[in-house]
Amino acid sequence: MNRVNGEGHRGTLYLVPAPLDFGTNVAEPAKVTQWLPEETLAVASRLTHWVTENAKSTRAFLKRVESVGALGCPLQEQQMTELPRSAHKKGDHQPGAEADATAQRLLAPALAGHDMGLVSEAGMPAIADPGSSVVRAAHALGLQVVALTGPVSLMLALAASGLNGQNFAFVGYVPQESTERSRRVRELESVALKSGQTQILIETPYRNSALLQSLLQTLQPHTRLALACALTLPEQVVRSALVSDWKRNALGQHLPLDKPTVFLFGR
Amino acid sequence: MNRVNGEGHRGTLYLVPAPLDFGTNVAEPAKVTQWLPEETLAVASRLTHWVTENAKSTRAFLKRVESVGALGCPLQEQQMTELPRSAHKKGDHQPGAEADATAQRLLAPALAGHDMGLVSEAGMPAIADPGSSVVRAAHALGLQVVALTGPVSLMLALAASGLNGQNFAFVGYVPQESTERSRRVRELESVALKSGQTQILIETPYRNSALLQSLLQTLQPHTRLALACALTLPEQVVRSALVSDWKRNALGQHLPLDKPTVFLFGR
Repeated sequence: MNRVNGEGHRGTLYLVPAPLDFGTNVAEPAKVTQWLPEETLAVASRLTHWVTENAKSTRAFLKRVESVGALGCPLQEQQMTELPRSAHKKGDHQPGAEADATAQRLLAPALAGHDMGLVSEAGMPAIADPGSSVVRAAHALGLQVVALTGPVSLMLALAASGLNGQNFAFVGYVPQESTERSRRVRELESVALKSGQTQILIETPYRNSALLQSLLQTLQPHTRLALACALTLPEQVVRSALVSDWKRNALGQHLPLDKPTVFLFGR
Repeated sequence: MNRVNGEGHRGTLYLVPAPLDFGTNVAEPAKVTQWLPEETLAVASRLTHWVTENAKSTRAFLKRVESVGALGCPLQEQQMTELPRSAHKKGDHQPGAEADATAQRLLAPALAGHDMGLVSEAGMPAIADPGSSVVRAAHALGLQVVALTGPVSLMLALAASGLNGQNFAFVGYVPQESTERSRRVRELESVALKSGQTQILIETPYRNSALLQSLLQTLQPHTRLALACALTLPEQVVRSALVSDWKRNALGQHLPLDKPTVFLFGR
């Protein structure tokens, strides 16, 4: 059932987005058709070779894909290679001969003619997630690269925040140490206020509350702050107001900050 | 058929993404189910009140939605208000009492209990498109705001480029005048090389070729440049290489630069 293109033909690398609910911690996760359109599902179900952030969650994802349409080959025969540990989170974008060679090795099935999928635990691979080293390697090997439509939490958050979407930056994580963090937040706020560029941040869920407190203490009263929590989940909520209103109306209360949250601020 | 929530209840503002093919210039556009998942289509088909960048293209969009499921009310009874001209393109993010008042007026149906949709010509409203003034007004009025999943060309381009997706900025348009444009490109390149922040640009299609030439002339040989043309369309192509390779291998040839294109560069 593996599809191999004509002799000498190389496979395409597809970037396959996954739902934002992870889907591994409930017995009956929501149907993937809720967030993944037909083209994405059609490709995801026919692929048989994967590069993945985490094989366990990719198997859970493919089980959900299978529940809405047959897979190209049985789950246990799907070929999956995990990204090397060093590529996880913040570490995927240091160019270097060794990283390039590793990434190219992961794409060997594509050189043999198989279409391949790159997938992360949730959302779009290679955006706020590892995978870009594999995409660069695909281009270096002359493979076609196609990104498929699916949920991207940063953009759902930006659109729903009302902050400037004509000029924005995603800056990842800020330092954990509080003095360093305040310094960095002030630096980003100064960019935002001068240029109008919305600044987008994320944090590990168990530090979300601390980051919110730090932003409320550090940002100026007239800076707009938005939080988008639990996007696409039943408890999702997006709150957007001036910092002075966040404080006056205690808007930080009752937010599901234990869930993935995107932080945004600007003028 | 209009759904009105209970007395005193306010409607939700949904940000409804549209396909990237515009869909107005062909007799039989592709099915929207290809790029819009079930949740997005379910909401789009039940809404009856809209704020839109362009009413004509929203009617064309709703016709496509109707072809895969019944609408909440007939097309000719859908209530649509266009964003004021001044909000179009680069002009939607100047806060001001007048703009705020205008945006709040557009949301009157939501105050009367109707759920509403905000939609642009293609892709996600309020991202590289007008609409953020309406979203801010919704938050000021205490409405719930929910962004729905659909194609976002900037993120499809970024993921498929292999450029750094842990730190990136969308900066919109660069100046048209060539000296000014080179100066701005050099400024952005200096940010990209220093901080590792991928820079993302767009241009009006008829100026795409000129922008590519300017980037090839201005950027340093070891800067990585990527172009993503005609995303989600049959002729889509993403090319990513060092500037020196773009020049050596004439990679700019045979690209569909007459189609919407996203430009990205970084290290």
